[in-house]
Amino acid sequence: MSRWQPGAEQRLAHAGLDLYVDQGYEDTTVAEIAERAGVTSRTFFRYFADKREVLFSGSVELQDEMVAALRRAPDDARPVEAVGAALDAAGRLIGSDRAHSARRHAVITAHHELRERELMKLSRLTDALTDGLVSRGVDPSGARLFAEAGAVVFRVGVERWVAGPPDAELTTVLEETLEHLCDLMGAPGTPSSSPG
Amino acid sequence: MSRWQPGAEQRLAHAGLDLYVDQGYEDTTVAEIAERAGVTSRTFFRYFADKREVLFSGSVELQDEMVAALRRAPDDARPVEAVGAALDAAGRLIGSDRAHSARRHAVITAHHELRERELMKLSRLTDALTDGLVSRGVDPSGARLFAEAGAVVFRVGVERWVAGPPDAELTTVLEETLEHLCDLMGAPGTPSSSPG
Repeated sequence: MSRWQPGAEQRLAHAGLDLYVDQGYEDTTVAEIAERAGVTSRTFFRYFADKREVLFSGSVELQDEMVAALRRAPDDARPVEAVGAALDAAGRLIGSDRAHSARRHAVITAHHELRERELMKLSRLTDALTDGLVSRGVDPSGARLFAEAGAVVFRVGVERWVAGPPDAELTTVLEETLEHLCDLMGAPGTPSSSPG
Repeated sequence: MSRWQPGAEQRLAHAGLDLYVDQGYEDTTVAEIAERAGVTSRTFFRYFADKREVLFSGSVELQDEMVAALRRAPDDARPVEAVGAALDAAGRLIGSDRAHSARRHAVITAHHELRERELMKLSRLTDALTDGLVSRGVDPSGARLFAEAGAVVFRVGVERWVAGPPDAELTTVLEETLEHLCDLMGAPGTPSSSPG
């Protein structure tokens, strides 16, 4: 057994998702999540404002990783390459546990209030990516538009990944999704009906 | 004076926005909105589930208009042209009252729960545009991606319009925003720093 034990926040996040899948999101209480994670409800509220938040425990880290990758991209990288680097960082961070992402995605998709929360998190991610692009010299108006497009690629790419073959790498799926969007937006000669 | 009088739903929507701007969203009650619109609270709840919804009274009509325009586009129109037609329909529908859109945008931006609701409405619009593109023969995976991009152009375009010069046409701003995104996504030779 590993000496390292995941901290309370991570245990709560896993316990929450397990219970939401097993017995339903509505029927799960904070007390049950805390009990399964081996902590008190008071500890729960030290980490999470409500039971929705346990599904978004990694979102700050995800945002930080993506923005850091955006900033690390070479000075002469084009915006699309910088956004690609941010997506690659996201893929490496969350791509190792497809089963977890698939379960999480299923719970969120089934609940209106969870979808609302997810959209807000993505909106904050978009703001952070916008700032990151502006700091790379992209004009603010274009940066906003491009960050939004990056967030679209992230959301759709993760959906494709969890719905696709189990051995696909998230980093690859995100890269292909970005290319797909570039093709759709940028190819003036493409006919309306695509081969799929 | 026109013989036509706006119906209760529209009066409630206008009364709600007026009160949210004048005295604040939190401090406004359903009873106050109903009173200003000259109806009872019971009538309010016949049209709107809660006080958030009065800000989204036109969203079903907007979605219907955009999807209809998408379907009406010529058979040989490329997806980007069909999405452009949908955006044009949106611009014609809501582009005549910039002051209203600007006030509405300011109220929504300032309130977390309203931003959540707006993102959900846009998410539903994206679903409808996806279906519309699929019915035009675009493969579902590309349709989803493209519809998301169209929703991004819509959101960012409206923001640019309400923040921009008062005499700008929304249809023009949306068209320019779509072109801007196409340029950003599709121009492999563009350097990182844009002229803006």
